[in-house]
Amino acid sequence: MTTQGSRPTGDVVVQKYGGSSLATVSQVRQVADRVGALARSGRRVVVVVSAQGDTTDELVGRAEAVNPRPAGHELDQLLATGETASAALMAMALQRGGLAATALSGARSGVLATGPHGAGVIVAVDTDQLRTLLDAGRTVVLAGFQGVTAEGDIITLGRGGSDTTAVAVAAELRSGHCEIYSDVPGVFTADPRVVPDARLMPDIDIDVMTEMAFAGARVMHARAVELAALYDVDILVGRSTATRTGTRIHRRDGNDMLEDRTAVSAVVHDADIARITLRTHDTPDPSADVFRFLAKESIPADMTTVSSAPDGGFSLGFTVRRSHAADVGRSFSDLMAPRPHGVEVEDQVAKVSIVGQGLLSRPEYASRMLASLVGSGISARSLTASQLRVSVTVPRSDAVRAVGLLHSEFGLGAEAGAVPASLTPRP
Amino acid sequence: MTTQGSRPTGDVVVQKYGGSSLATVSQVRQVADRVGALARSGRRVVVVVSAQGDTTDELVGRAEAVNPRPAGHELDQLLATGETASAALMAMALQRGGLAATALSGARSGVLATGPHGAGVIVAVDTDQLRTLLDAGRTVVLAGFQGVTAEGDIITLGRGGSDTTAVAVAAELRSGHCEIYSDVPGVFTADPRVVPDARLMPDIDIDVMTEMAFAGARVMHARAVELAALYDVDILVGRSTATRTGTRIHRRDGNDMLEDRTAVSAVVHDADIARITLRTHDTPDPSADVFRFLAKESIPADMTTVSSAPDGGFSLGFTVRRSHAADVGRSFSDLMAPRPHGVEVEDQVAKVSIVGQGLLSRPEYASRMLASLVGSGISARSLTASQLRVSVTVPRSDAVRAVGLLHSEFGLGAEAGAVPASLTPRP
Repeated sequence: MTTQGSRPTGDVVVQKYGGSSLATVSQVRQVADRVGALARSGRRVVVVVSAQGDTTDELVGRAEAVNPRPAGHELDQLLATGETASAALMAMALQRGGLAATALSGARSGVLATGPHGAGVIVAVDTDQLRTLLDAGRTVVLAGFQGVTAEGDIITLGRGGSDTTAVAVAAELRSGHCEIYSDVPGVFTADPRVVPDARLMPDIDIDVMTEMAFAGARVMHARAVELAALYDVDILVGRSTATRTGTRIHRRDGNDMLEDRTAVSAVVHDADIARITLRTHDTPDPSADVFRFLAKESIPADMTTVSSAPDGGFSLGFTVRRSHAADVGRSFSDLMAPRPHGVEVEDQVAKVSIVGQGLLSRPEYASRMLASLVGSGISARSLTASQLRVSVTVPRSDAVRAVGLLHSEFGLGAEAGAVPASLTPRP
Repeated sequence: MTTQGSRPTGDVVVQKYGGSSLATVSQVRQVADRVGALARSGRRVVVVVSAQGDTTDELVGRAEAVNPRPAGHELDQLLATGETASAALMAMALQRGGLAATALSGARSGVLATGPHGAGVIVAVDTDQLRTLLDAGRTVVLAGFQGVTAEGDIITLGRGGSDTTAVAVAAELRSGHCEIYSDVPGVFTADPRVVPDARLMPDIDIDVMTEMAFAGARVMHARAVELAALYDVDILVGRSTATRTGTRIHRRDGNDMLEDRTAVSAVVHDADIARITLRTHDTPDPSADVFRFLAKESIPADMTTVSSAPDGGFSLGFTVRRSHAADVGRSFSDLMAPRPHGVEVEDQVAKVSIVGQGLLSRPEYASRMLASLVGSGISARSLTASQLRVSVTVPRSDAVRAVGLLHSEFGLGAEAGAVPASLTPRP
């Protein structure tokens, strides 16, 4: 993404509202009331909306009923109508409250995107029209989740893409701040449906949040957090019915770190994954081919492990979204043929991760994690570790239990403080 | 509208499918099967689709729930999603059948439009992309009912606008022919729900059809027929489940006329109207102001009558869609103030018309029409006549009876032939 324009727009607030906050007429009106109050207080507001309620799922269902494997161009045209309609309705609701408001579809929003259909990447946001409308005193409502290619085609950004739209618009408008509202009150130390004493975190470092999102925390889209980190956009994640409470996601400096009592911030699990392992023998290393394929298809892979044995045996493993597993497995068999190889698809696994800071600087975290799981009879099949995250795959049926164990092991619950405060701030 | 391009495209078929023919997945597939068979026979096909089933009504309902008076820009953005989604689904269904198919939304279709939101007028169709896709062997599915302004905004063409889209595309592609499919088998001598012995007409003169459509025949949109007349596009109107049967709407020459046994072709009624009468005294003639207002608001008026009395009294009356009546009445009171005036809105009337050829050449048609109604105790409150149509307003409660009377009076039923064959062809 490149930034354009130079006029200062520090007084612009970009707010994104998720589909669950817009499912009914009364919800649309409630959000319009919030936005209206903010606009009347003198702020210039850009609202990014998702499709209402379950609209996207319904549209996918209609597409699949007509054609189980629809072309991306047509599927994107269909799905984009969800957010386009939602933006129109939100602008109408704002107009009803007496506000000057304009809805823009993806084709008109200035969000320029590229990449395969269904997994578009924002290239830039042409903010000229946006600034003109804001300067004219209008509140602008953008259809999230979609952009327009250089050829004029609509392309969708993949699930959660509306978060990315909001952050990209905030970045290009140089507002430095973006608010993401949904039915979730903020970022928790673990999924509160799984761990009853999970705590809401008032703030979290943006790099840690990137890892959390990638590890499966559903509160925010991973790409959106990465973009925010890259362009120094602070994010507030909160409930659409609350005001300015929730979790602040920002770049924490050393002084903030002093207040932390542990380097492990949260436990995240993701049951919607499969692990794929490719094994070959006595052939050229296929890694480059494999990653080229994944990049071309825009399939994000996590927990990559590569190993080669002295006897020439080679194995390459990673996790993907479960919906991608069968396709990837099949494509790899094609890719490797006629070389001798085996492709293993494990689709009864889940990913469980601890996220935090300096996790590799203190190797006890990975070992405590494994010891805790093994001590309770849960086998970790694969492990990857970085400074910000340690992830393991476990049998899916053990995932919930694993999250509870680790949340307690690292003292993340309401009774936090059990972990020795032996940590020093980052330099 | 201006025509562009010059390559011959006589082998292109433009087919339009109405919302009732696309309401369910199985209907979408049935239509796709038809289109697929045609494409495989070697024809190049452009399909124009309406929104599925009651989608447009549902979207209007959602808009009204959020804002009873939404801005046109936002309402158009919302409504256009119906046809855009429908086009995507139809293209997917065609792809499932192995056909190369591309869906285009209004923003991409090349249909250039202008005018107020909700009542756009097609200015031109930029067929470059359409021709490129057709030349590449692709079947193209266009979202009907919508066009794009020079500024890039989506504008809808008003109810029935998908018919207009189809005819405009056929005209600009110089295909000379357009097929309009819905759940109606064709054009009848009267509404068969009202007149049991109404006959399906195998063909009808296009000028007569223009009058029929304007008089309230719902089978085709009046503007679409006018456009077809202007650009010499033949139309076939039929059921989406039948093949090449229905009513052919085309310019009939004198020889065809010889076969007619009566100049009255059909009886048409329209209960969705109101009559507005403006009365003033001793003021400048307000007609120009009134028609300027109607043109600006794109409100079609019919059955215009103007009368002025020697004492300076002046009255101007016309019919409009019932949904426009209250607005028009109120606007006229504003327009006339502070001059003394009265505005009468009759909203319990219906329009009943006979359509055919040479109706004024033989004044007995109007007099037989009135005599027949009066003889059955039905009062005609106003009357306008042209060569192609004589219309009266009657109390709405008498409309159905009036249609039956006139259908029988002019011998249009299955027992046709009662009217003397005294007619000569047009020169």
